[in-house]
Amino acid sequence: MRAIQVSEPWGVDRVEVVERPEPKPGHGQVLVRMKAVSLNYRDLLMVGGVYSRGPAMAGTITPFSDGCGVVEAVGEGVTRVKPGDRVSTLFFQNWTSGRATVEKLTSALGSPIPGAGAELQVFSQEGVSKVPDFLTDEEVSTLACAGLTAWRGLFEDARLEPGDTVVLQGTGGVSIFGLQFAHAAGLRTIVTSSSDAKLERARLLGADHLINYRATPEWSRPVREATGGVGADFIMEVGGAGTIHQSLRAVRIGGHIAIIGVVAGAGEGVNPGVLIGNNAKLQGLSVGSREMFEAMCRAIALHGIRPVVDKVFPFTEVREAFRAMQAGEHFGKIVLTFGA
Amino acid sequence: MRAIQVSEPWGVDRVEVVERPEPKPGHGQVLVRMKAVSLNYRDLLMVGGVYSRGPAMAGTITPFSDGCGVVEAVGEGVTRVKPGDRVSTLFFQNWTSGRATVEKLTSALGSPIPGAGAELQVFSQEGVSKVPDFLTDEEVSTLACAGLTAWRGLFEDARLEPGDTVVLQGTGGVSIFGLQFAHAAGLRTIVTSSSDAKLERARLLGADHLINYRATPEWSRPVREATGGVGADFIMEVGGAGTIHQSLRAVRIGGHIAIIGVVAGAGEGVNPGVLIGNNAKLQGLSVGSREMFEAMCRAIALHGIRPVVDKVFPFTEVREAFRAMQAGEHFGKIVLTFGA
Amino acid sequence: MRAIQVSEPWGVDRVEVVERPEPKPGHGQVLVRMKAVSLNYRDLLMVGGVYSRGPAMAGTITPFSDGCGVVEAVGEGVTRVKPGDRVSTLFFQNWTSGRATVEKLTSALGSPIPGAGAELQVFSQEGVSKVPDFLTDEEVSTLACAGLTAWRGLFEDARLEPGDTVVLQGTGGVSIFGLQFAHAAGLRTIVTSSSDAKLERARLLGADHLINYRATPEWSRPVREATGGVGADFIMEVGGAGTIHQSLRAVRIGGHIAIIGVVAGAGEGVNPGVLIGNNAKLQGLSVGSREMFEAMCRAIALHGIRPVVDKVFPFTEVREAFRAMQAGEHFGKIVLTFGA
Amino acid sequence: MRAIQVSEPWGVDRVEVVERPEPKPGHGQVLVRMKAVSLNYRDLLMVGGVYSRGPAMAGTITPFSDGCGVVEAVGEGVTRVKPGDRVSTLFFQNWTSGRATVEKLTSALGSPIPGAGAELQVFSQEGVSKVPDFLTDEEVSTLACAGLTAWRGLFEDARLEPGDTVVLQGTGGVSIFGLQFAHAAGLRTIVTSSSDAKLERARLLGADHLINYRATPEWSRPVREATGGVGADFIMEVGGAGTIHQSLRAVRIGGHIAIIGVVAGAGEGVNPGVLIGNNAKLQGLSVGSREMFEAMCRAIALHGIRPVVDKVFPFTEVREAFRAMQAGEHFGKIVLTFGA
Repeated sequence: MRAIQVSEPWGVDRVEVVERPEPKPGHGQVLVRMKAVSLNYRDLLMVGGVYSRGPAMAGTITPFSDGCGVVEAVGEGVTRVKPGDRVSTLFFQNWTSGRATVEKLTSALGSPIPGAGAELQVFSQEGVSKVPDFLTDEEVSTLACAGLTAWRGLFEDARLEPGDTVVLQGTGGVSIFGLQFAHAAGLRTIVTSSSDAKLERARLLGADHLINYRATPEWSRPVREATGGVGADFIMEVGGAGTIHQSLRAVRIGGHIAIIGVVAGAGEGVNPGVLIGNNAKLQGLSVGSREMFEAMCRAIALHGIRPVVDKVFPFTEVREAFRAMQAGEHFGKIVLTFGA
Repeated sequence: MRAIQVSEPWGVDRVEVVERPEPKPGHGQVLVRMKAVSLNYRDLLMVGGVYSRGPAMAGTITPFSDGCGVVEAVGEGVTRVKPGDRVSTLFFQNWTSGRATVEKLTSALGSPIPGAGAELQVFSQEGVSKVPDFLTDEEVSTLACAGLTAWRGLFEDARLEPGDTVVLQGTGGVSIFGLQFAHAAGLRTIVTSSSDAKLERARLLGADHLINYRATPEWSRPVREATGGVGADFIMEVGGAGTIHQSLRAVRIGGHIAIIGVVAGAGEGVNPGVLIGNNAKLQGLSVGSREMFEAMCRAIALHGIRPVVDKVFPFTEVREAFRAMQAGEHFGKIVLTFGA
Repeated sequence: MRAIQVSEPWGVDRVEVVERPEPKPGHGQVLVRMKAVSLNYRDLLMVGGVYSRGPAMAGTITPFSDGCGVVEAVGEGVTRVKPGDRVSTLFFQNWTSGRATVEKLTSALGSPIPGAGAELQVFSQEGVSKVPDFLTDEEVSTLACAGLTAWRGLFEDARLEPGDTVVLQGTGGVSIFGLQFAHAAGLRTIVTSSSDAKLERARLLGADHLINYRATPEWSRPVREATGGVGADFIMEVGGAGTIHQSLRAVRIGGHIAIIGVVAGAGEGVNPGVLIGNNAKLQGLSVGSREMFEAMCRAIALHGIRPVVDKVFPFTEVREAFRAMQAGEHFGKIVLTFGA
Repeated sequence: MRAIQVSEPWGVDRVEVVERPEPKPGHGQVLVRMKAVSLNYRDLLMVGGVYSRGPAMAGTITPFSDGCGVVEAVGEGVTRVKPGDRVSTLFFQNWTSGRATVEKLTSALGSPIPGAGAELQVFSQEGVSKVPDFLTDEEVSTLACAGLTAWRGLFEDARLEPGDTVVLQGTGGVSIFGLQFAHAAGLRTIVTSSSDAKLERARLLGADHLINYRATPEWSRPVREATGGVGADFIMEVGGAGTIHQSLRAVRIGGHIAIIGVVAGAGEGVNPGVLIGNNAKLQGLSVGSREMFEAMCRAIALHGIRPVVDKVFPFTEVREAFRAMQAGEHFGKIVLTFGA
């Protein structure tokens, strides 16, 4: 059985495929034959050794939180799934439902719990969930982190109504899911990107307004214009310090900014005082619970939403996949498959 | 009829008491004989010319948003109050209920609408509200801004349950109201201050834990200790960039930080990325609606809560009152009275 | 100027068109030239003398709460609209925003406030709202009560996510709006009717599942089947005692039943104990606020939703219109126009 | 090891104490030496054979959902507790958090899962929770059902603010907890009872208003008077069809009625139409989740709330205890102890 791993001193060049003995499921555990895993920006941070949710990383890790596989065997006491069931991994293995706690948020796959990047992997039965039939394995593999982050941001923590306006920044995995979910929910969608070609693809997925932030760095202006001067009800913030100041100008009074990523990196922080003026809410969030995942799957099934898979690599080309992510040219998700 | 005013080039020394003709209430308006007004930090900014909610200030303004008075006369079409009723002014004259909007938030007394600092002042009937009998005029005069800000922060935007832990920063007007309201609501209260004497006074108002942040600048540590390592459910942030970083370490995962002031001024801003790690919410807020004011008054009446008035000056000594606020030695509110 | 009125001893045959002097707008009022009004079941109750919201009806009333018109003139102090603006009436003239209160709920048009059934009518400026351009006058006239009731039921009091399942009972005005709004919000929709032909029309409006309750009186069974045995997340209950028992079997544990009408009349009441078993919520509701109306109009504009107008009569044929409603054959709304 | 059991053909006289072999904890299970259990009205229904949550009862059952004990031994894989920990049972063994589902609500102790009425009993580690030190075993034994039902009714499903008014019906276990919790939360409390002596005891627990419903069968009138004509914000309905009609007259527009019991039994059901008039909510609820239980314990610890234990019997006198409950003379809870 082959597995992907990376060890100190971290780096994409340190990612390798190794042979390991087949694991066995213990009490309450399931053995899953993986079909596909998808890459998240978090995985890139992690193989680079700069990721630090929970205990600091040390030694060797098996990356990837998001995967699709088929249950191969189950341990004693397993009732949720049976051999042959196709499942998605769950990002947080212990966050079944309810509110976020330290215990729940430190049960993430990849770190500290060994991830889904292996031909065979063992999970708690609580840490996998059945998925809609109509999706391909590659599509399913994108749901656990990117899909669920977008879902939670839109539907669990904000309170949006049809006709409200949401801004999706860029065309990475979470933002594209955000666009698809928001469109399905009858929300008005504004997408920003540095590429007109990507914006056109976003239009096909239901984007109502397109803004090229290279051409219009002050993108908060067209957002306000598109909303009659009021501002957006909701912004999915993926850029961090590099984009938050435009978001704060683009959001309506009392609006909601969900902080889900920091890819645009450097920049000045937010002076808390500016939040007073517009009564805005900034909420950080990291993925979600299994109950939220199940709700998301119901919506995906009803609307026939197909996750956008940009590039597929065999898992043996995992380094190439990470480099494609570093290049930042993707639209949607990058996936590894565990082939025949 | 005498009124307080201040004009360009702003400053506490530019505040003066002038004679003006008696105003007359128009359709839907009430004429109020003011009994007391209280000072807010906002008033200090305003007379200093650095306040900028709504249109930039220009010319001459009548300061003070928070006042208590007795209806002297009413214009045509007035049904909400009658001559002889004792009322509080409302900070936002147009925010009756519902969510915050630009129109509602630009109807603040003081700026842009002439404030309550006059022996006789005219208000819309929608912009005043009757108040509990057992409070003195001075006490009533503290409710409109400081009281309501604390109320909204605790009860409208967060969702707290008895037994939850809240942190109140310092012993200014909003924080002391926050302490009283939180205590009445069965919440566990932690108060920070640079003065042991003030902390002792806070204890008498119901504070469960006291932290001297001069002795313990890393005050997030005792907060976490007091909560079994979990962190506070809610923090009323009045310090801005100077204290927010401790707040972010003191709040629990998924906790709520209400941003209501920036008195500690300078400091580095918040990198949005830190919110992801703890799934925290930052919410800026400015005062609240009339319906919230009425709910607050019901609670004040039930619990016999007495606003903490620190110092009282005759309105003719308005400059001395502002200097007392600048000195920052107060515990609770500073009030001006319009005498016999 | 002609107006519709009805007086004791009530009845459809007592409805008549009379000549009245032209009204003049007072302070804060607007004079509106009505273009269309729509009929609600409530109007039928009212002209029958059996309606009793607020003070008991007496003497003579001008019916109709839902109308579209053009502002003809404005009184002093009017700022919200100007002559030439096309507006909808608001069902509750005093419910601008915030939660329902006695004062707000006793400000309904028709009773106790004279209704929209006149060629010229005066309203408070707070009691009208501008409407999307693309709708016809007839379509606009259906929004104030039927549209807003469906909107509030779905989006203000329940908390639904895309993929959740809602049941709409029958094909009356509120239910058809409910279907259109739920479909736009990405909800799964189940429609019940006694007519296969009406069900087919519902399918064209986006209904996902159709149930003929004449063929299947135990319609809760197909609802449970369609939801994998779980039950519906939300049911818009229009039938009252005649249908509520099926609703209680069709709703999921913890689900929400919005009670908006009682057209199916007689039947045994609900034993409160049955609510314990399924942790269900029953919520009665009557229309909504102006802020909700404005949110609804934003969604209607974004989605190009066209209210379903079944039959149009000139206002002089108001008795025929009422008889058409009594016949119960309509699909969507019945409208009166005030002609050229 | 002795245990309490009851079997067909049910009845209080069929309850008996029997000898059973000592159970052993399996994987993920804990063995608990019970110290005390408390009686709920549900237990009375159950031993009478008329209880039917989940599958119909058959054969022999071990009653009692609410107990306090000390962990005696733990099976493999147990991490939540260790031998020597004092714990409460949880009513629903599978409802850890999140919303109610069929699977969660059919995991109740007593039926279908063997209950806590034994000297030694095995539970899932997920089905017990540590409890505050300052409470006696008898007091702890009252929390799982009666305490948590009151907690959830007040704080999870309604949204109450300090100063709001709540009505507690009678002085049974849930109502007394409701009074204590509501008082701690700064709510205004109105208690009804048929006994002036019990009302006086309620006053000592913080009741603000007392109503003897024998003297004043139309108790909705004093409720409305006590609230300035507005009505109560929240009513904890324990009587079912016998009291609900008064509750519907006593609740404010838009108010919340939590249906948690039906002890007053017979009477006409609720015509759904009456809910439209006052926009009220009826919500049925049954106990709550472990996360709610933990929140309740935090509040109990902060406020030093002592559950009201009325009568204590040795477990061998279980029939006498049930007869005491049938007599209905208790104020608070009836408890069985498992002696030295």
